Amino acid sequence: MTHVPADTPADAPAYTSADTSADTSADTSADGGTPLSPPSDSDFRLGTEPFSDERRTAVLAQLEDHLERHRARMLGYQVNLSLDGHAPLGRFLRHHINNAGDPFVDGNYNLHSRWLERAVLEHYARLWHAPLSEDPNRPRDEDAWGYVLSMGSTEGNLYALWNARDYLDGNALVRDEISGEASCRTTYVRARHPDDNPNAYSPVAFFSQETHYSHIKAMRVLDIPTFYDLGGSLYPGQCPVDLSGTGSRTYHGWPLGGVPTTGGDEGPGTVDIDALVPLVEFFAAQGHPVIVNFNVGSVFKGAYDDVATACARLRPVFERYGLVDRTVRFDPDDPDRTSVRNGYWVHVDGALGGSYAPYLEKARDAGLVESAPPVFDFRIPEVSSIVTSGHKYPGAPVPTGIYLSRAGFKLRPPSDPAVVSSPDSTFAGSRSGFASLAMWNHLAQLGEEDQTRQAAETLAVAEYTADRLRAVSALLRERGEPWAEDGIEVGHGDHALSVWFQQPRAEITAKYTLACVPLNLGGQRHDYSHVYVMPHVTRDLVDELVADLSRPGAFDRSAEEGAIRPPLPG
Amino acid sequence: MTHVPADTPADAPAYTSADTSADTSADTSADGGTPLSPPSDSDFRLGTEPFSDERRTAVLAQLEDHLERHRARMLGYQVNLSLDGHAPLGRFLRHHINNAGDPFVDGNYNLHSRWLERAVLEHYARLWHAPLSEDPNRPRDEDAWGYVLSMGSTEGNLYALWNARDYLDGNALVRDEISGEASCRTTYVRARHPDDNPNAYSPVAFFSQETHYSHIKAMRVLDIPTFYDLGGSLYPGQCPVDLSGTGSRTYHGWPLGGVPTTGGDEGPGTVDIDALVPLVEFFAAQGHPVIVNFNVGSVFKGAYDDVATACARLRPVFERYGLVDRTVRFDPDDPDRTSVRNGYWVHVDGALGGSYAPYLEKARDAGLVESAPPVFDFRIPEVSSIVTSGHKYPGAPVPTGIYLSRAGFKLRPPSDPAVVSSPDSTFAGSRSGFASLAMWNHLAQLGEEDQTRQAAETLAVAEYTADRLRAVSALLRERGEPWAEDGIEVGHGDHALSVWFQQPRAEITAKYTLACVPLNLGGQRHDYSHVYVMPHVTRDLVDELVADLSRPGAFDRSAEEGAIRPPLPG
Repeated sequence: MTHVPADTPADAPAYTSADTSADTSADTSADGGTPLSPPSDSDFRLGTEPFSDERRTAVLAQLEDHLERHRARMLGYQVNLSLDGHAPLGRFLRHHINNAGDPFVDGNYNLHSRWLERAVLEHYARLWHAPLSEDPNRPRDEDAWGYVLSMGSTEGNLYALWNARDYLDGNALVRDEISGEASCRTTYVRARHPDDNPNAYSPVAFFSQETHYSHIKAMRVLDIPTFYDLGGSLYPGQCPVDLSGTGSRTYHGWPLGGVPTTGGDEGPGTVDIDALVPLVEFFAAQGHPVIVNFNVGSVFKGAYDDVATACARLRPVFERYGLVDRTVRFDPDDPDRTSVRNGYWVHVDGALGGSYAPYLEKARDAGLVESAPPVFDFRIPEVSSIVTSGHKYPGAPVPTGIYLSRAGFKLRPPSDPAVVSSPDSTFAGSRSGFASLAMWNHLAQLGEEDQTRQAAETLAVAEYTADRLRAVSALLRERGEPWAEDGIEVGHGDHALSVWFQQPRAEITAKYTLACVPLNLGGQRHDYSHVYVMPHVTRDLVDELVADLSRPGAFDRSAEEGAIRPPLPG
Repeated sequence: MTHVPADTPADAPAYTSADTSADTSADTSADGGTPLSPPSDSDFRLGTEPFSDERRTAVLAQLEDHLERHRARMLGYQVNLSLDGHAPLGRFLRHHINNAGDPFVDGNYNLHSRWLERAVLEHYARLWHAPLSEDPNRPRDEDAWGYVLSMGSTEGNLYALWNARDYLDGNALVRDEISGEASCRTTYVRARHPDDNPNAYSPVAFFSQETHYSHIKAMRVLDIPTFYDLGGSLYPGQCPVDLSGTGSRTYHGWPLGGVPTTGGDEGPGTVDIDALVPLVEFFAAQGHPVIVNFNVGSVFKGAYDDVATACARLRPVFERYGLVDRTVRFDPDDPDRTSVRNGYWVHVDGALGGSYAPYLEKARDAGLVESAPPVFDFRIPEVSSIVTSGHKYPGAPVPTGIYLSRAGFKLRPPSDPAVVSSPDSTFAGSRSGFASLAMWNHLAQLGEEDQTRQAAETLAVAEYTADRLRAVSALLRERGEPWAEDGIEVGHGDHALSVWFQQPRAEITAKYTLACVPLNLGGQRHDYSHVYVMPHVTRDLVDELVADLSRPGAFDRSAEEGAIRPPLPG
C-alpha cells in the first residue's frame, strides 16, 4: 500500500480505492493462504444436485474468509467479536436443544438446557437487583421472572410491551385467580373501564428520540398508540410537545422522533426529563395509563437515560392521577373479582448497556473509574421490565438476550400447550437452547472481577477513541481540509461506548464496517458515522482508523453520493 | 436389564423403574466412559468467581452426555436429530453473523450471510412454486418475498398474521405510493371504512381445532379477533358453529377449539371444509375481511388440510362478497389514493409439512409412493403466505424456519433504520446469520433425489410404526390387558408422520421422550402420546418401543397420576 504524504494538495484526491480497500489483505486469505474471492449469490445457489463435499467446503471457506477479513477491523456496530471462547461449543451443534415453554417448568422434551438458562437468569436477576421468583405459580411483585431470548432485544421489547399493554388494559394476570376463560379467544378476561374514566384501559406509549427503531415496530405490531397518535387525534393543539413528528433529527425514518433529548442534537442523547414529565402528566390527567421506555446504551449515541431521576419525578404524577395500586374490576357485579395493580409500566431497553453498566458501578466502587451511569434496574420501584442483548456487549454467535420483569406482573399465558407440558409463557414457541448455552458459557468464563475490569477498560478505550478523534478534528480544522473545514463534529456522551463523527469516504466506512446515519440537523442533512467500542476493540485498531482519517481527502465524498448506502425505499 | 416374561400376571406390576429407566446406560456415559451424573441447577450456578476451565468443561460434558442419552431414543417430537452434518459449522461460532434488515438489500454490516439466506429462500420459492421478486421495490403479486426466521415458525406465523391484519385493515403496503406518513406513529396511512360497510377493515380469523397454540398467541399479540370473539360478541346465536369453545377436544388449553376437523376426534385431523366454508361465508356476508389458517403437518396428528379444495370452495364466497380485488381508499377526497387488494389472507402453517410434502409429491411422480398430500403452495392463487420450520423436518441445531409471502402483499416497514441501511422489513431486529448458514448447509448436502427418497422413506417408517402399534393394540386387546383392554387407540392419518396412541407408563414416555397430550373426548379425559417419525427414526428404534409397549403393565399408570406432567397452572 502506498502511503500518500500528508502534504498532498487537497484538490488532488489523495485516496485511491486500493489505499483503503475493504479487502485489507488482497493477496492472501485471512489465514495467510491463497486469496479467496469474496462470496457471491452464484457461489451458494442451490439446485437439484447436491453440492459435492469439496465444493461445499470451498464456498464455506469463502464465507469464513470474508468474515475473518471484516471481523479484524470491525469498529462500527455494538457487537463484541471476542468470541473465541464459543468455538468449543461446536460439538453441541449435533443436537437440537430446545427450551420450549417456561424456563422454570421442565417439560417432556428432554433435549433442553434449562439448567443453564436458569443460571443465566439468576445471574442477571442478581446483577439487576431482584430475586428470582421461588414459586412461579405464586409470583410476588418484587420478584423477577424472565427468559433467555431467541431473537435478541427486539423479542424482549416486543414481549415487554405486550405484557405492558395487557397489564394496563385490564387483562387477567397469572396471579389473578380468574376462571372461565375459553382458550380459543383472543379477548380473555378483561376488565371494563369505569364509567367515570373511559381512558382507564387505553395505554399510551412514551419514548425518546434516541429509541431503537424496534420500538415503533413493536408498538405497531401490538397496536399500542404513541403520544403522537393520541396527542394528534384526541388532543390536537393541547399536548405540551411538538407533535409534528418531523423534528430536527428525523431522516429516513430514524431517529424516530419522540421525547426530546437533553441539549438537543448536540447533547449526549439522554431523555430530557423536563420534557418527559409534563408530557406524561398531560396524558395521566386525561385518565390514560402510561408506558414509558427508557434507554440504557441507546442505539446511536450509546446514551444512558437517568431512569432513577426520571422515576422519582414521575412518582408523584403517578400518585396524583391514581396510577399507583389502582383496582381493576373484572365484573361490576362481583366486588371480589378484582386485581390491584399499577397504571404505569416502565420498560428499560438495556440492549447494550444493561450488560455492562452494572459493572461500571462496581468499577466506580472499586476506584477503577471516576463515575458510573445512573441506576436503571429493579432497585427503582417503578421499573417493570428490563431487556439486554447477549450478542452485543457480552458477545454471542447468535442473536440472543435476557428479558426480566416483575414476576407479579406476568401475563396469564394465552394457552397451556399440553404437548410441551410447560406453560407457553414466552414469546417464541421453540426456544433456542443453544442461546442459553452460549450465554452461560460466556458468563462462566468471566467472574465479577473480570467483568468489572473489562467494563472499565472498554470505557477507557472509548474515551481514548473520542480524544483521538477530537485530535483528528482539530488537525483537519487547522489544515483547512476541504469537506472537513469545521472539523468532523466528534460527539461522545458520558460513559458512552459510541463515538460519532462526520462520515468519511466509502473506503473507510467499508474497511472498518462503520455504521452510517444521515441526520437532518436544522433542515440540513448531516451524514454521521459512529465507532462502537466493544471489548474486542484495541487502541491499535483505533490508531489505525485515526491514521486513515488523518490523511488528506479522507472525508472527500464528492464522487460517491449514494454509493455507500443502498437506496432506501420510501 | 431384566426382561420380564410376557406371561407375568397383570396384577403383579411387571415394570420396575430400572426396567425402562430414562437413563438407558446407567453405568456408562454416552461415549462409553465413566458414568456422568445428570445435569442439575446447582452444577451450573454462576457466582462471583468464574468457573475454572476444568469445571466448566466437566459440567458441559454432563450436559452433552444428557443430550446424547436422550437423543439416542427420541421418538416423540417433530425434530430431526440427524444433525451430524452441522458439527463442522463449529468454526463459525467464532463469528457473530447478523443479517439485520431485508434479505435482499445488503446493509453496511459486513458480517452477514445473506448470500446463503437468498439461496435458501430461492430454494423454497422454487419448492413452493413462486418466483422470488426481482425488484424488491416493485414487487408483483405473483412473486415471493420472505426471510429466514430466527425463532422458528412462531415468528413466521406472527409475521404472517401481522402482515395479514395490516393488509386487511387498510394499511399502506410497500407497493402503495403514499407519502407523508410520520414514522413515529403506529397508525400509518390507513384507509377509512366505507359508510356502507363498517366491518370492511375488521378482519376475523379462522383456524381448525388442530391448529398450533402459537396461533392463539399471535392473534392475542396482534389483537386480531377470532370467529369465537366476534361470533359471540356481535352475532350471538347466529353463527353456523358451536361457539362455546369448550368443544369435545379441549383440555388444558390444547387443542384450542376451532373449526371442527373431518370425522371429529377419531378422524385424521384435517379441517372440515364443509364446516369451514359456511362459517367464512357467514362473516363475509357481514362485510368482514377474513384470515384463514391452514395446517400442513399439524402439531398433534400431523394432518394435511386440503388447501387446494378448501380454496376452490372459498373462491366463490370471496367473489360473492366483494373480497377479490377490492379497492381500499386512503382519502375519500382523492380518488387516486387507493390500493387494490384482496379482502382475504390465506396463511399456510407448514411448520412441519411445508418442508417435505413437496417431496412426497415428487416421490409420487417418481413412483416411490402411491399418493401424496394435497397441494398447499403458491400454485393456489389464494395462498398468501407459507411458513415452515428449519429445525423440524430438515433438522437444525437452533430454531429457525422460512417465511415466504406474496411480494405484492408486503407491508410497508414501520421505519427504515439508516443505522443498518437495509429496510426493517422482518420481525426481528438482529437476525441470525447462523440460522441461514445452518439451513444452507443442510440443503447443500441433499439434492432433489435425496430429498425425495428421504421423504418416501420417512413416510414408510411412519406407516411401519402405525402397523406395529396396531399389532400391539390387537395383542393387548387379545390379552385383556388391564389398562388397555380395548387396545391402545392407535391413530394415523394419510401420509402423516405422527402416530398417536394411549399414553403408556412414565418410564416409557421418558425413555423415548414421548409427548403426552390429555384430551377430553365426550366428557372423559383420555391421555395420549404420539410418536413423530422424523428422518433420524429407524425401524429398529420403533421395534424397541414396540417391545417395551408389549410387556405386561406397560400402560399401567395407576401409581403415577400427575407424575409425568408437571402441574399446569390455571
